[in-house]
Amino acid sequence: MSLKEVQKEVDVWTKQFKIQYWEPYEILARLMEETGELAREINHIYGEKKKKSSEAKKELGEEMADIIFTLACLANSHNIDLDEYFKKVMDKCYGRDNNRYDRK
Amino acid sequence: MSLKEVQKEVDVWTKQFKIQYWEPYEILARLMEETGELAREINHIYGEKKKKSSEAKKELGEEMADIIFTLACLANSHNIDLDEYFKKVMDKCYGRDNNRYDRK
Amino acid sequence: MSLKEVQKEVDVWTKQFKIQYWEPYEILARLMEETGELAREINHIYGEKKKKSSEAKKELGEEMADIIFTLACLANSHNIDLDEYFKKVMDKCYGRDNNRYDRK
Amino acid sequence: MSLKEVQKEVDVWTKQFKIQYWEPYEILARLMEETGELAREINHIYGEKKKKSSEAKKELGEEMADIIFTLACLANSHNIDLDEYFKKVMDKCYGRDNNRYDRK
Repeated sequence: MSLKEVQKEVDVWTKQFKIQYWEPYEILARLMEETGELAREINHIYGEKKKKSSEAKKELGEEMADIIFTLACLANSHNIDLDEYFKKVMDKCYGRDNNRYDRK
Repeated sequence: MSLKEVQKEVDVWTKQFKIQYWEPYEILARLMEETGELAREINHIYGEKKKKSSEAKKELGEEMADIIFTLACLANSHNIDLDEYFKKVMDKCYGRDNNRYDRK
Repeated sequence: MSLKEVQKEVDVWTKQFKIQYWEPYEILARLMEETGELAREINHIYGEKKKKSSEAKKELGEEMADIIFTLACLANSHNIDLDEYFKKVMDKCYGRDNNRYDRK
Repeated sequence: MSLKEVQKEVDVWTKQFKIQYWEPYEILARLMEETGELAREINHIYGEKKKKSSEAKKELGEEMADIIFTLACLANSHNIDLDEYFKKVMDKCYGRDNNRYDRK
């Protein structure tokens, strides 16, 4: 699924509702919640209070997908094309950052 | 670009380096940094300390793409297929959450 | 209770345990969790998905106190005196930032 | 300095300005920024992209104090007494959580 399709799917689903997208600050607060839940999973898997969990990978995946959903809401409500900006990030990687780390 | 391609691109670029992916906690800390930078942009655009900026949309897009890059690193280092989990999120939307908000 | 006492109380309690303080990254991840929980409360009180709650103030207070506890752990495990640094913040307020906002 | 004094100091300084406290969402976004900056410091000190820094402790302390300042703004704008809630956290520690970790 392309980033554009991700954004489209979110748009189609949210279009059903009276308020299609929350206010930017509300989406941002939701992003904090989701990021916090990802942090909790990381502590469950790698931290002191470790819980052995066959579910670990699944839960990480779900939290990350929730973050992507939330980003798509923020992007859509600002007419931002994430594909375009992701391409820029990769350009920056191959440009400015290409000698940033030790090579093999 | 598909989520799979996003992950692939990140994989190809990072493969050049001795340490392909940071430790999970380091990636998580990076995600907090990037999320904090997105928060700063939101405050610049919508908050009291507003700075009028024709650059606003561009900067929001860039911060969001940085978050996606960081998520792709975390996903790749755990062999997580984001497409698969994003599909689950949309299934949850059309299932459990489909009557969560007021319809038009 | 002074910031020093806050730190002392946390120190006394944690001293009972084999591992007094988690690793810095684990404490940081916990801080993200707690910050995410505060964000959820803010959305409950002010956001679209508002739940009227007489408990609101109480819950905000509790989330903030959890953040302070977590900061005290990080500070203690680095021998950082928060009082000293808070004083610096106030000095910066009365110095550099004293003309930053419109006065009454 | 007590938590009450921390809150008082913040109150006295902010009282000079036309807008004493930002809106809750703006303060929350600021908290994300500050938390993100703390995360960057942690990565500087402990992460792959480590920069040896005699300044490390100082910078950690400053970021933590900025978080406390931001929390005090949120608390003050909601008439929340952080001392009261911190006491509750410590009660929870000695109650529910007192057997949570392995003792020495």
